[in-house]
Amino acid sequence: MIDLRSDTITRPTPEMLEAMTQAEVGDDVFETDPTVNKFQQKMADLFGMEAGLFVPSGTMGNQLSLHLLTKPGDEVIIDETGHVFNYESGAAAHLSSIQLRPLKGDRGKLNRKLIEPAIRPKNDWDPHTRVIAIENTTNKGGGAYYKKNELIEIHKLADEHHLSVHLDGARIWNAMTASGIQPEFFSTIADTISICFSKGLGAPVGSMILSSKDRIKKARRIRKMWGGGMRQIGLLAEAADFAVENHWPLLDDDHKRAKEFSEAISKNPAFKIDLSTVDTNIVLFDVVGETADKAIQKFSDQGIVFVPFGPKTIRATFHFQVDDEDLKKVLKVVEEYS
Amino acid sequence: MIDLRSDTITRPTPEMLEAMTQAEVGDDVFETDPTVNKFQQKMADLFGMEAGLFVPSGTMGNQLSLHLLTKPGDEVIIDETGHVFNYESGAAAHLSSIQLRPLKGDRGKLNRKLIEPAIRPKNDWDPHTRVIAIENTTNKGGGAYYKKNELIEIHKLADEHHLSVHLDGARIWNAMTASGIQPEFFSTIADTISICFSKGLGAPVGSMILSSKDRIKKARRIRKMWGGGMRQIGLLAEAADFAVENHWPLLDDDHKRAKEFSEAISKNPAFKIDLSTVDTNIVLFDVVGETADKAIQKFSDQGIVFVPFGPKTIRATFHFQVDDEDLKKVLKVVEEYS
Amino acid sequence: MIDLRSDTITRPTPEMLEAMTQAEVGDDVFETDPTVNKFQQKMADLFGMEAGLFVPSGTMGNQLSLHLLTKPGDEVIIDETGHVFNYESGAAAHLSSIQLRPLKGDRGKLNRKLIEPAIRPKNDWDPHTRVIAIENTTNKGGGAYYKKNELIEIHKLADEHHLSVHLDGARIWNAMTASGIQPEFFSTIADTISICFSKGLGAPVGSMILSSKDRIKKARRIRKMWGGGMRQIGLLAEAADFAVENHWPLLDDDHKRAKEFSEAISKNPAFKIDLSTVDTNIVLFDVVGETADKAIQKFSDQGIVFVPFGPKTIRATFHFQVDDEDLKKVLKVVEEYS
Amino acid sequence: MIDLRSDTITRPTPEMLEAMTQAEVGDDVFETDPTVNKFQQKMADLFGMEAGLFVPSGTMGNQLSLHLLTKPGDEVIIDETGHVFNYESGAAAHLSSIQLRPLKGDRGKLNRKLIEPAIRPKNDWDPHTRVIAIENTTNKGGGAYYKKNELIEIHKLADEHHLSVHLDGARIWNAMTASGIQPEFFSTIADTISICFSKGLGAPVGSMILSSKDRIKKARRIRKMWGGGMRQIGLLAEAADFAVENHWPLLDDDHKRAKEFSEAISKNPAFKIDLSTVDTNIVLFDVVGETADKAIQKFSDQGIVFVPFGPKTIRATFHFQVDDEDLKKVLKVVEEYS
Repeated sequence: MIDLRSDTITRPTPEMLEAMTQAEVGDDVFETDPTVNKFQQKMADLFGMEAGLFVPSGTMGNQLSLHLLTKPGDEVIIDETGHVFNYESGAAAHLSSIQLRPLKGDRGKLNRKLIEPAIRPKNDWDPHTRVIAIENTTNKGGGAYYKKNELIEIHKLADEHHLSVHLDGARIWNAMTASGIQPEFFSTIADTISICFSKGLGAPVGSMILSSKDRIKKARRIRKMWGGGMRQIGLLAEAADFAVENHWPLLDDDHKRAKEFSEAISKNPAFKIDLSTVDTNIVLFDVVGETADKAIQKFSDQGIVFVPFGPKTIRATFHFQVDDEDLKKVLKVVEEYS
Repeated sequence: MIDLRSDTITRPTPEMLEAMTQAEVGDDVFETDPTVNKFQQKMADLFGMEAGLFVPSGTMGNQLSLHLLTKPGDEVIIDETGHVFNYESGAAAHLSSIQLRPLKGDRGKLNRKLIEPAIRPKNDWDPHTRVIAIENTTNKGGGAYYKKNELIEIHKLADEHHLSVHLDGARIWNAMTASGIQPEFFSTIADTISICFSKGLGAPVGSMILSSKDRIKKARRIRKMWGGGMRQIGLLAEAADFAVENHWPLLDDDHKRAKEFSEAISKNPAFKIDLSTVDTNIVLFDVVGETADKAIQKFSDQGIVFVPFGPKTIRATFHFQVDDEDLKKVLKVVEEYS
Repeated sequence: MIDLRSDTITRPTPEMLEAMTQAEVGDDVFETDPTVNKFQQKMADLFGMEAGLFVPSGTMGNQLSLHLLTKPGDEVIIDETGHVFNYESGAAAHLSSIQLRPLKGDRGKLNRKLIEPAIRPKNDWDPHTRVIAIENTTNKGGGAYYKKNELIEIHKLADEHHLSVHLDGARIWNAMTASGIQPEFFSTIADTISICFSKGLGAPVGSMILSSKDRIKKARRIRKMWGGGMRQIGLLAEAADFAVENHWPLLDDDHKRAKEFSEAISKNPAFKIDLSTVDTNIVLFDVVGETADKAIQKFSDQGIVFVPFGPKTIRATFHFQVDDEDLKKVLKVVEEYS
Repeated sequence: MIDLRSDTITRPTPEMLEAMTQAEVGDDVFETDPTVNKFQQKMADLFGMEAGLFVPSGTMGNQLSLHLLTKPGDEVIIDETGHVFNYESGAAAHLSSIQLRPLKGDRGKLNRKLIEPAIRPKNDWDPHTRVIAIENTTNKGGGAYYKKNELIEIHKLADEHHLSVHLDGARIWNAMTASGIQPEFFSTIADTISICFSKGLGAPVGSMILSSKDRIKKARRIRKMWGGGMRQIGLLAEAADFAVENHWPLLDDDHKRAKEFSEAISKNPAFKIDLSTVDTNIVLFDVVGETADKAIQKFSDQGIVFVPFGPKTIRATFHFQVDDEDLKKVLKVVEEYS
């Protein structure tokens, strides 16, 4: 099976497992796991933030961030395709008593023109606008990434209105690879960042939130309250560190394979694709004359797995465990598809 | 001052106050206030529902209804102009841990074509679509009302997808006056209804939720938990009863005055209005060549008060405490406005 | 029927109703009801606090206060008989995500020796002790009141540990009548105070929270979110004002009647009472040789109503709508009871 | 250092790590990790429950269980030393809007005589008693375990009052070792069980909740909402499985070492201990004539680490990474202590 459903399905490599077994561990509830402590500081330094906190999932990373920035009755502006709005089980309402305000952005990306009219007057009955939450790269938006000046513009707008910015960086590694933006830049435009190691980077488990020391201290407490405090997590931190060091450099190849794949798609009249929308490792394309479910079944019969993203739309996600040989097989199936 | 800001500003009349002083009261926490008990049943019977519960505000009525119909992580489909989404301080997230899914409807009204694509697949990560919340008449939508077949269509769709329907009937009295729909019809298309006595009907305080006996029993408990359990509320119930009996019949005149007013507006080139949007007691119109705030100031200088509803948009709301003489003065000012 | 079940059952007098009908009202959501505005400031001044906010119930008053003083995961120290712990439907957990820490005090009263060992160390896993909540007079504690030095001691302890003090003053009127403490003293020992007008004072509906301007501003917002924002509440405020002016002075008579009643109880061997526990308008006594339910039935057959407070315990609550003539009848029944 | 602070500090052995690297993994969010799927069923079968769910922490296991059994405003009866009441950051209020009702049990254990009077009448204002939560073995209670008939009595009481029973089995492995009770027995007295692999069993991370299929399905959803959904957790499940297979049998030795240690303590007049309270791997003892902190420092200077459990009380916790040689050193220090 060639699995293009998601980059979350990547599995630990033997080298990564070997690294894990060498990790020195301690009890992280008492803050005495040296491996996770070192890794948290390493990631904070990388992104120019003061401190970091390892969490069991991207969802917890995003939700902790929003919890730190808001209070009950606040509102978070977000793109209507945002992960927080669509794939986190409604957690923001439950865990932080906050309302989401989804806007129709451009492939998952927001901008001043969209955001400004959505900022509410401050009275007793309106929800209180408090945070702009952006995603980079966008998942449901098809892997689009923000340019530097776009991020600066959002941050400036937030500042003018005394709002905070949360950056959902689950795939920020892909964004950096594609845009060439350096990691420390992001600390200048966001108050909280969540990053993830278990998508394209291929670690088995784990995400991290990055922010100020004071906020991360509070986040430790909330993480415990939500059941995310774990014990000897140096093991997982070591795997994540290995992933950053060894798999981040591989993302560029994923992006190239996504491009090659989308070009093949564009050549077969059974499909429709806008090539200008293929920015990173995610490819969204439509099928013509049949349903997405039918097409996915036909691919699956030939050993290639996708996920549906609409009645006519399919998502293919490339990751380092689909190599050039796999790609060749996929291209052949695409070519011959009818 | 002729106050057209809202129908919430109506004040108790001497006759209403006289009625209040005659009310027999008891302690409603112990369910022994005869006046509120009788009035709750009267309203339930009127709308063809099993039971009713008096609450201190329309917000509590809507929020109790949604609480009864959902559990944490559920999602409520609503028009983006909906009162629950815009004017209840984000309460749905706080009190029920639920997410709102705002859709862009037609003057605040939803329909099958809009709702159906927004119903989510049922998995662990999507919010779970659970309720369709409609408002009738629409407030921010400018007083539009649903036709019978439109309500039947929404109810049918809800049924097909095992969703509930909540009807925010803060101004259902205006909807019934304008549409001629009988009150008991609404029990056939909604699981919970909230109605309000302190808007156009002119009672000082109070709303009610209507539903099944079982749900109302649960609602009593939740109302107590939210601090909405009051003592000798027969006084307020009596005023509300008086309002239903004596002021509901007056709404038709409000609607006529709103129409006359909007025709005058349409004749002055300083304003822009689509006359087809004036359905009940609410009039939305635009100013040309200056801001809404400026225009409101100019009207205010002549003793007429409106509220802004956008940079160029003004809302005028008619109610029984603006009579024909008041209207005449207003029309004159509109005519001479420049 | 002579109703000694609770002082919440008191009904508005004709004079109070007459005052209500004269009240000048406005829309309190827009903060333009002159009567409630004046009354809020009057009560704030009376108790030496900066500002006040009228709320529909004592429960909302207490819960708003705790919400203002805490954040999720905090803990509130309270007597195990406290109203907040026993009679508010578990609201503190629901509305503020806080844990209550009940302690076994003396007739509902706490002190340093009890509180200090319950203050927790500050780490990620313990709930964070944040508030000491006291009740004065105590309800379930049988109407006991705090002496001045007891309140000063609790406030000092709170200060030492950076905790806040909330005072549930539902029956503070009785406490002041019995202790002679002046109202403005309470602002020196509490951060938030809730007071109630619909118990012994006899207003139909309404409580108030008192605190700093900044906190009351936040409280307005939260009240709206919880559905406690009402419209023309000058009516209710006027009734409450009338109650303070005219019924507060009557409490001393209630206390005397409670004493007379308890002396009669002590003389009949069918009952057991500790006379030293009768401090204000609440009398707790035990029945000998039968159940409380049985005794209550027998009294009820003679037109006198109590509530059970344990398998053998009965509560009698005196209020201004039980007069000397009523008392005489009650005393006779007590005397002849067997 | 000989670390007797807690059994949570145990570290993965080389054999456990070797097992982890062999685990077959998948993406557990899509329920396709074969190792965790198998292990969940294995644990469910072991305890006679229908299904199980792996979670990142014992806190999440307990909190998920309580969430499944309650609704907002419900109350959970628990011993005042209970983990849920003391060491879960107040999570029950935050995550489930429920109140805890702590009772003073016997070394952390509840019984009918204590519980029954705490069950509340069912009305609108009392919290609604819904769950009895017990802990076995007790942590803060000093490692006490329930006898079979004690558990049967609690379950019977719960049944009579339509309450559920949650069993916090973080150290149920120690309870089974000490009591000889078979695992499947517990499914007959509890509705939900949480078990933990990262305490005495020595897995690096992980707990599990066990219940009916229907409840576990709901728990998956809530786990996702709380940020506890992880990806390739077969790695952690394999370690936990290894721990159950290989380290559970070692607990008996821990208990024996705890006994030997406590006998040595009892012989030195610098300490005070009730030997009858040493049931499993936890030893609570007092110091005489100095503070616990001081004594802990003196032990620490000799390479032995404890935690304080009160001003005069110390807790020592035995686990398989303290062997007979370590014990010998500890006994010597205890003997010579003065």
